[in-house]
Amino acid sequence: MNVQAKPASITTGPIAGSRKIFSAAPGRADILVPFREVALHPSANEQPLPLYDTSGPYTEEGARISLEAGLPKPRAPWIAGRAYTHMAGRAVKPEDNGFTPEDRLVPACPATQEIRAAAPGQLVTQYQFARAGIITEEMIYVAHRENLGRMCAHEQASALRADGEDFGAAIPNFITPEFVRAEIAAGRAIIPANINHPELEPVIIGRNFLVKINANIGNSAITSSAAEEVEKLVWAIRWGADTVMDLSTGRNIHNIRSWILRNSPVPIGTVPIYQALEKVQGDASKLDWEVFKDTLIEQAEQGVDYFTIHAGVRLAHIPLTARRVTGIVSRGGSIMAQWCLAHHRESFLYERFDEICDIMRKYDVSFSLGDGLRPGSNADANDAAQFAELETLGELTKVAWDKGCQVMIEGPGHVPMHKIKANMEKQLEVCHEAPFYTLGPLTTDIAPGYDHITSAIGAAMIGWFGTAMLCYVTPKEHLGLPNREDVKTGVITYKLAAHAADLAKGHPAARLRDDAVSRARFEFRWEDQFNLGLDPDTARDFHDETLPKEAHKTAHFCSMCGPKFCSMKISHDIREEASRQEGLAAQKAAFAETGGQLYVPVTGG
Amino acid sequence: MNVQAKPASITTGPIAGSRKIFSAAPGRADILVPFREVALHPSANEQPLPLYDTSGPYTEEGARISLEAGLPKPRAPWIAGRAYTHMAGRAVKPEDNGFTPEDRLVPACPATQEIRAAAPGQLVTQYQFARAGIITEEMIYVAHRENLGRMCAHEQASALRADGEDFGAAIPNFITPEFVRAEIAAGRAIIPANINHPELEPVIIGRNFLVKINANIGNSAITSSAAEEVEKLVWAIRWGADTVMDLSTGRNIHNIRSWILRNSPVPIGTVPIYQALEKVQGDASKLDWEVFKDTLIEQAEQGVDYFTIHAGVRLAHIPLTARRVTGIVSRGGSIMAQWCLAHHRESFLYERFDEICDIMRKYDVSFSLGDGLRPGSNADANDAAQFAELETLGELTKVAWDKGCQVMIEGPGHVPMHKIKANMEKQLEVCHEAPFYTLGPLTTDIAPGYDHITSAIGAAMIGWFGTAMLCYVTPKEHLGLPNREDVKTGVITYKLAAHAADLAKGHPAARLRDDAVSRARFEFRWEDQFNLGLDPDTARDFHDETLPKEAHKTAHFCSMCGPKFCSMKISHDIREEASRQEGLAAQKAAFAETGGQLYVPVTGG
Repeated sequence: MNVQAKPASITTGPIAGSRKIFSAAPGRADILVPFREVALHPSANEQPLPLYDTSGPYTEEGARISLEAGLPKPRAPWIAGRAYTHMAGRAVKPEDNGFTPEDRLVPACPATQEIRAAAPGQLVTQYQFARAGIITEEMIYVAHRENLGRMCAHEQASALRADGEDFGAAIPNFITPEFVRAEIAAGRAIIPANINHPELEPVIIGRNFLVKINANIGNSAITSSAAEEVEKLVWAIRWGADTVMDLSTGRNIHNIRSWILRNSPVPIGTVPIYQALEKVQGDASKLDWEVFKDTLIEQAEQGVDYFTIHAGVRLAHIPLTARRVTGIVSRGGSIMAQWCLAHHRESFLYERFDEICDIMRKYDVSFSLGDGLRPGSNADANDAAQFAELETLGELTKVAWDKGCQVMIEGPGHVPMHKIKANMEKQLEVCHEAPFYTLGPLTTDIAPGYDHITSAIGAAMIGWFGTAMLCYVTPKEHLGLPNREDVKTGVITYKLAAHAADLAKGHPAARLRDDAVSRARFEFRWEDQFNLGLDPDTARDFHDETLPKEAHKTAHFCSMCGPKFCSMKISHDIREEASRQEGLAAQKAAFAETGGQLYVPVTGG
Repeated sequence: MNVQAKPASITTGPIAGSRKIFSAAPGRADILVPFREVALHPSANEQPLPLYDTSGPYTEEGARISLEAGLPKPRAPWIAGRAYTHMAGRAVKPEDNGFTPEDRLVPACPATQEIRAAAPGQLVTQYQFARAGIITEEMIYVAHRENLGRMCAHEQASALRADGEDFGAAIPNFITPEFVRAEIAAGRAIIPANINHPELEPVIIGRNFLVKINANIGNSAITSSAAEEVEKLVWAIRWGADTVMDLSTGRNIHNIRSWILRNSPVPIGTVPIYQALEKVQGDASKLDWEVFKDTLIEQAEQGVDYFTIHAGVRLAHIPLTARRVTGIVSRGGSIMAQWCLAHHRESFLYERFDEICDIMRKYDVSFSLGDGLRPGSNADANDAAQFAELETLGELTKVAWDKGCQVMIEGPGHVPMHKIKANMEKQLEVCHEAPFYTLGPLTTDIAPGYDHITSAIGAAMIGWFGTAMLCYVTPKEHLGLPNREDVKTGVITYKLAAHAADLAKGHPAARLRDDAVSRARFEFRWEDQFNLGLDPDTARDFHDETLPKEAHKTAHFCSMCGPKFCSMKISHDIREEASRQEGLAAQKAAFAETGGQLYVPVTGG
């Protein structure tokens, strides 16, 4: 049992300077949405600022976490109300855990789990409910979450909203549950929420909502312990990951996945073909529909919320990659391409797509239609292979919708800046506005070691243009496995890129945080500046490297320029001096809405 | 003499995997331009790749550096040929070194320096030569440098060039000295090159050339030794800084500046108002034209290549800042605003602008017209104060050109993505296409500790839109003084942003490096991938964290997925398999220029 919970290794406790609060959705005292509230210095005379919070129960004050028991289940009463069929569930097979010998087998998470599935004809997916005009608890939950706990569209939000360019997105000043329903019904948004994942705190992914980010975890070839894997999840969501993909392969993956799911408040995504390949001992040519189908059911019963399915890698697309600089760089894509070539026949994922839909619908597992032919270099961006696959994904989107499934579409990859917008436009066009979920894109290939940054540039831009979720990239991209610091750096980098996109789109809640930081900065409220930031610990450490004394955190200057040269201090003096000199009347004129027109024309030469 | 050269503390030696080469400009065997050449693994069957190199003699194999002697003087014969007046130079005064007591005075650099100035009516600035139709050696030098040593516009460059969106820039496939001259004559580019800085390796800053980056160094309030300050410069240019601004204040600044200039191969910029303020003991109200003029002459004689002059902060603009969230955040801007308010009169920099031009022209010190009213928060972006100042800078640009001076314009600051393009468009319009030199811009305010990244997003975008030089931001921005690692991170981050901009603009030489990296990646040439990157040391370290063995650097897989899951390896297999299966005839059809048309339409549904 050495693989089970070691509570000491799970990071718990509040993020510096904030506390967890729960806010009931309007009119629904039973639907409690978590936020992270930052209290400001009394001198600010400002209300505490509620922040979107993905970190789950782990950041509650005095959190008592038992990995064996799993997390509380906010969705349990909602799901119970829908009366799905309870099942014994599929029996675990030796190949599910990569044929791990008995003595090295990690036990499954002992947390109780009832396995449910929808009966034929029964409504189950959020898409089906939305199409039927039914507002689910999940929809109410995400609406309140997107509003950051605001109860109505107040004037300030409306003023902020006007300041943005949304490229045809339609972000309202206030998100209502009905708006959420309508967006899901239109296929423009999804709530990945397997009915076997009651621990989930629902999140919405769509162009007209806050831009989300995904972090990948996984054991790669070397088996980690269950607690280590859960800690990777907890660490990623602490810093802001909205969803987490478990890309594990090899031994014990079924059982480790059970620990992850029972302890995850965020949607978990997987790439089932990875596990299917393990089941056929790594020989892609031996893959077939039966082993893949069995894997889908296995993972769906465990509660995985979305599956990457590379059904767009068709036989006919493969020759289009032959002249590429970097060929096929998606693992799933290359596995399927290998299968197609080995058998010289059409992909079974494409041919069996209807059946895949029927399985995924039963549990409300969302599709993440994989971009197996995404470019792996700027040279291959926007080429025939990439766009041929994207068109196929658009065709499959309609099939999945007809089958009642939720769908998002994966996107590149490596794309120079001038080719990014075409990706978004093409995706909107051929995939009928299904949410786009992109990896980066990386805007240059020349900076190994810094690809979190080369990709944050592309991610911020494509997020602005309309991408709903950004898959993070860490500094280790192309070079090695990310460690704990790399994961944090990747998550924070992507949070700032997503936020930059929200700002530029004019999301009504986005600018509140920027303005709060800026006021804190201008008023020398150092602690507020740290705590309102994405990473209070690093900001505080950086400050303390130069000016460690506690007194300096209330000083009206900082280490960069010193007291004599502090422009912010001078600015305060200017305000006072200006106010003294101008006298009340002149001041009124100068500071009025037409500010300064008396003195200088604001337009023209 | 403890302050003088400690050779051990100066970083020398080649950057990993490359060697310094010198390439003669076409037809001018006497004009030798340095590049950094990366040799590739024999299996690549590729020529070594020459890279633009800013690092100066410090990275030559077996470099023998003497800080006391200063660097070699490539410009000396060119300047000598222009027969300027030799002068004794202004006598050093106690206030030049911030009234440093004798026993704490750092001696000046003993390297010999002849002080020159142009006689009235004599051509001196690159702008004057360009207007007169004269191609200088500096112009020939930068043309060859921009071409990365290519001798002509070959076909490949032309093909690459077509792939970009330049927003009205006019980047030729091959840069000729005449093109350089014409761009300088039009005011669209500058070569900051004080005639008292013969150690300079000239660099061109303009929209139709490679995007450049600047790094700031400075001692802030605490005095550093001369060798420490030179090492900051050497470290910044090692990683790619095209120019360096010395923002030092306090004691010994005159003498430390002498060490920097005599040992700098890149243009040095300063903000003379900082030193002028020191001379009046930090009381802005005591500043006057005489002390400022004296400071300009002092620094021009030392060889400073460009001055930030905040002449756009007019009295009438100051009330426009009073309602801002973050007031005035530029140090120079706030000093001048304080002066204007204290005296309630127009800025002496604005009123004496003609005289400033007359001084700067004599030495060919370029203007960097400072944006003293740049926004310090997203909330203040693109406001009346910022744009009123920009219009004044446009007015002053014409004055400076009429006086024969070279000019660039400084820009923001903090700007959300959707407001960036308007900055570039407005600058092009009101500043008559003079080169834009921006700080970031930062695209969100919420990430203290990560502002190199929030700003790299904005920098890449504005570089693409037309900004000629990007001023770097380090992770310590807003929090403290950057250390050695922060400076490196800031420089590399900005190099990648500038390169992403070059790629998107379609610079004909930019993509060669990306494609070389991508080929190395696809062919598992790990060492080549590291060495072609911006930071070979970090890339290698990251790789070795997971797979340290030397053998793995030739392995046909990496640590991320392991051999079984390696998509690149599978891709290679696919190429072979595809080639085998298709047979020669089918293969020819599939791989032809119309690649894959046989199999699938590349456009349409």
